[in-house]
Amino acid sequence: MNYMEELGQKAKQASHVIAKAGAVLKNQALEAIAKNLLNSTEEIISANQKDLEQAVKNNMNLAMQDRLKLDETRIKNIANAVLKVASMEDVIGEEVRGWIRPNGLRIRQVRVPMGVIGIIFESRPNVTVDAAVLCLKAGNAVILRGGKEAIFSNTCLVKVMQNALTSVGLPAELVQLVEKTDRETAGDMMRLNGYLDVLIPRGGAGLIQAVVKQATVPVIETGAGNCHVYIDESADLEMAVAIADNAKTQRPSVCNAIETLLVHENIAEKFLPEIQQAFEKHKVIIHGCENTRKILGDSVILATEEDYFKEYSNYEIAIKIVKNIENAVNHILKYSTHHSESIVTQNMQNAEYFLNSVDSSAVYVNASTRFTDGEEFGFGAEIGISTQKLHARGPMGLLALTTTQYRITGNGQIRS
Amino acid sequence: MNYMEELGQKAKQASHVIAKAGAVLKNQALEAIAKNLLNSTEEIISANQKDLEQAVKNNMNLAMQDRLKLDETRIKNIANAVLKVASMEDVIGEEVRGWIRPNGLRIRQVRVPMGVIGIIFESRPNVTVDAAVLCLKAGNAVILRGGKEAIFSNTCLVKVMQNALTSVGLPAELVQLVEKTDRETAGDMMRLNGYLDVLIPRGGAGLIQAVVKQATVPVIETGAGNCHVYIDESADLEMAVAIADNAKTQRPSVCNAIETLLVHENIAEKFLPEIQQAFEKHKVIIHGCENTRKILGDSVILATEEDYFKEYSNYEIAIKIVKNIENAVNHILKYSTHHSESIVTQNMQNAEYFLNSVDSSAVYVNASTRFTDGEEFGFGAEIGISTQKLHARGPMGLLALTTTQYRITGNGQIRS
Repeated sequence: MNYMEELGQKAKQASHVIAKAGAVLKNQALEAIAKNLLNSTEEIISANQKDLEQAVKNNMNLAMQDRLKLDETRIKNIANAVLKVASMEDVIGEEVRGWIRPNGLRIRQVRVPMGVIGIIFESRPNVTVDAAVLCLKAGNAVILRGGKEAIFSNTCLVKVMQNALTSVGLPAELVQLVEKTDRETAGDMMRLNGYLDVLIPRGGAGLIQAVVKQATVPVIETGAGNCHVYIDESADLEMAVAIADNAKTQRPSVCNAIETLLVHENIAEKFLPEIQQAFEKHKVIIHGCENTRKILGDSVILATEEDYFKEYSNYEIAIKIVKNIENAVNHILKYSTHHSESIVTQNMQNAEYFLNSVDSSAVYVNASTRFTDGEEFGFGAEIGISTQKLHARGPMGLLALTTTQYRITGNGQIRS
Repeated sequence: MNYMEELGQKAKQASHVIAKAGAVLKNQALEAIAKNLLNSTEEIISANQKDLEQAVKNNMNLAMQDRLKLDETRIKNIANAVLKVASMEDVIGEEVRGWIRPNGLRIRQVRVPMGVIGIIFESRPNVTVDAAVLCLKAGNAVILRGGKEAIFSNTCLVKVMQNALTSVGLPAELVQLVEKTDRETAGDMMRLNGYLDVLIPRGGAGLIQAVVKQATVPVIETGAGNCHVYIDESADLEMAVAIADNAKTQRPSVCNAIETLLVHENIAEKFLPEIQQAFEKHKVIIHGCENTRKILGDSVILATEEDYFKEYSNYEIAIKIVKNIENAVNHILKYSTHHSESIVTQNMQNAEYFLNSVDSSAVYVNASTRFTDGEEFGFGAEIGISTQKLHARGPMGLLALTTTQYRITGNGQIRS
C-alpha cells in the first residue's frame, strides 16, 4: 500500500462517519474550524512566512507572492467565509424524486454525499480552507494537494482544521493534505481508483490538462474560458458598449472574461469606434479581422486563426465582423471552450436562436459574461466552474459535491 | 486528423443539428428506423450470417454464438424496442430550475443534449440499435464501437439506421460505426477529447477496466456487481428465503444478482438449512464461513477472503454469519462494488440504519436486488447501470444522456 493509498483508505473510513453526521454536527465542525483559524492566526502567519521566504529565494514574481501571502485580515476573511458556508442550507437527505412501482416497491432517489473528493490546486492557500469546508458541508472527506510553494501554510491550515474536527468528535482524517509534493505522488493521486470518487483540479490550463490526461479516477474539468460577446445588428448601442467593455476589462484574468468580440456588419461602423474608445482606458490591444481594420485603422493588429483560439487573460482582445447571427454562432461553436457567451440584441427571435444554438455552460442575452460565478448565481460559494458536460456544468455549488442513491422499500417483492 | 477524429468531427457537426430538432422530428426518425429495420430483415440476416460463419470458424462457444445471432423474431423485437423509445416522453428543454437574482438577471437551468456519446460494447448486435436510439431520443449524436465478431451485422444495422435518418432530413452522421476494430483505433476513441462528451463501456469487467484506465474523455463506469443480501435477526423467515433465493438464482449471470449472503447469528440456525434446500434446486455451490459450515456441514466449502471479493456470476455463493447489523454493514462497505444491497428485516430501526449506512447505488429493504434495472425502475429503457458516483448512479435512463445549460436573460447588467 503506497502513501496515497494510505491517505485514501483513511479518507474513505472517515467519509462513512461524516456521511451519517447531521447538519448540526457538520455546522459545529465548521464553526470550530472558523474559531480555530482565528485563534491560530499567529501560528498560521509564521508558517506562511516560511513559504514567503522560500518564494523570495526562488525569485517568485511579486503578483504570485502576493497571492501566497496570509495576514490577519486575510485569515479573518477566510474564517468568515467558513461561517458563511456553515450558514448555508444542508443539501444532504433531500428526496430528489420518489415514486411507487406497480408491484408496490417504493423507490426514493435521495441526495447523499459524494464520498471522498480530491482537490489538486496551485499556490493560493485560501483555497485549502475554502475547498475543504465546502466538501465537509456536503458530507465528504477531502484530500488536498496544494503546490509545494505553499506547503508550510497548507500543513498548518490543515492541522488547524483537523484539531477543530476532533474537538467536535469527528475524525481528523476528513481533511488530509498530501504532504509529498513530488510528481509521482500526484500521479498516484490521479490513479487512486477505489478511494477517490472525484478529482477536481483548480488552477491553470497546464495543471488541468495534466490531470485530464493522466487521471483514471473521475475528473471534473474546470476553468478554461474562451468566451465571446456577439453584438447583434439590432443591439442597443450604449448597452452593447457597456457589456463588451465590462466582459473584457472588469477583470481580464478570470475565466468568464471574454477573448473575442463578434460584431454584426450592419452595426460595426457605429459600434467599433465607441468600443475602441472605451477600451483605450485600459490600453486594450486589439487584434481585428480585415474589415475591423478598415474601420478602426492600422493600430489594430491583424487577427490570425490562432488569435481566435487564444485565451489572452489580459487587456487584449480579438474582434471579428460577421455577416449574420448564424456566422456568429458558427464561430462560437468552432472556437469556444463552451464556458460563457453573450448576445446583445433587441430582437427576440435572435435572442432565442442564440440561446438554442450555442452549446456553452452559460449563455446570456443582454448581460455580461462576468456573471458566470457561484456567488453571482446565488449558490453561496463555489468549488469551481465546470467546463465539461458530465455531472456538473457551469458554476459548481454544494450540489456538485453530492450524488444520489436509490432507496427501495418493499414487503417481500421478488423478480419473476 | 486521424480516422477517429474524422468521425468525431462529423458527429459533432451532426449533434448541433439534432440538438435543435424537436420531439416530433426525433420521433419520426425513430419510427423510420423501426420501419427500415423490418424492411431490411433479409439484408440484416444475411450480414449476420457472415458473422456467424466467422464465429463457427473461430470456435466461438455456443452461448456466445446464440447472443450474436439475429433472426426474424429478434429483429422484430429490436424494432419494437425502438418504437417504445419513440413513445417515451421527450426530456429535452425541461426547465430544471429557474430563479431571478436581486440584480434582475433571470437564470434558467435547462436540460439539453449531452452532445456526442461514445459507446464501446461487446458482441451482442441488439445493443447497436438499442444504444443508438436512446442517444438519438435524448438529442445526441453517437459513435458506436462494437466487437469485431459482429462487424458485418453492425455495419448493416448502422447503414439501415443512417438511411432512416436521411429519409427524415437528419444527418446520417448522427449514428456512426467505428469500422476499424483494432486496438489502436479503440485507444484513439478513448482519447477523443474535444469531440466525445462521454464514453460508456458496456460489457465485461475487462472491457470496462481497460476503458477506465486508458480513457482521457469522461467515462461512465458500468456493470460490476458484487451485491449482498443481509438477513437480519428479525427477518420474516419465509420472505428471507424467497428474497435470498431470487437474488441469487433467478438470473445469476447479471450484475444485480447477489454473490454473498450475510446472516445474523441469531437466525442462522433456522434460516440456513432452508436456504440450502432452496439452493439445491439449482445445485448452488456454497462457500461458507466456519460457523456456516458448523450448521450446514462439510458439503459447504470454506469461504476465503477472495470469495468475498468475487463475482461468481453463476450458481455459486458465499455465506457469512455476522454478530450484528454493524458487522453486516462493515462487510458490505469493505467488499461491495456499491451496486445493490438488500436487508431483510422486520425491525424499522435496522432498516433505517441499513439505508443510511450502506454506500451503494441501490439499497433495498425487504426486496430482491434483482430490481436494479431501468425497466424495473420505470425508466422505459436503460443505457446501463452506473457504478460510479459522478453524473449518474444506478440504472441510467434518458436523463443520464443529457446535461444542463444555464440561460441567463438580462437588460444590460454588468458586473461591478
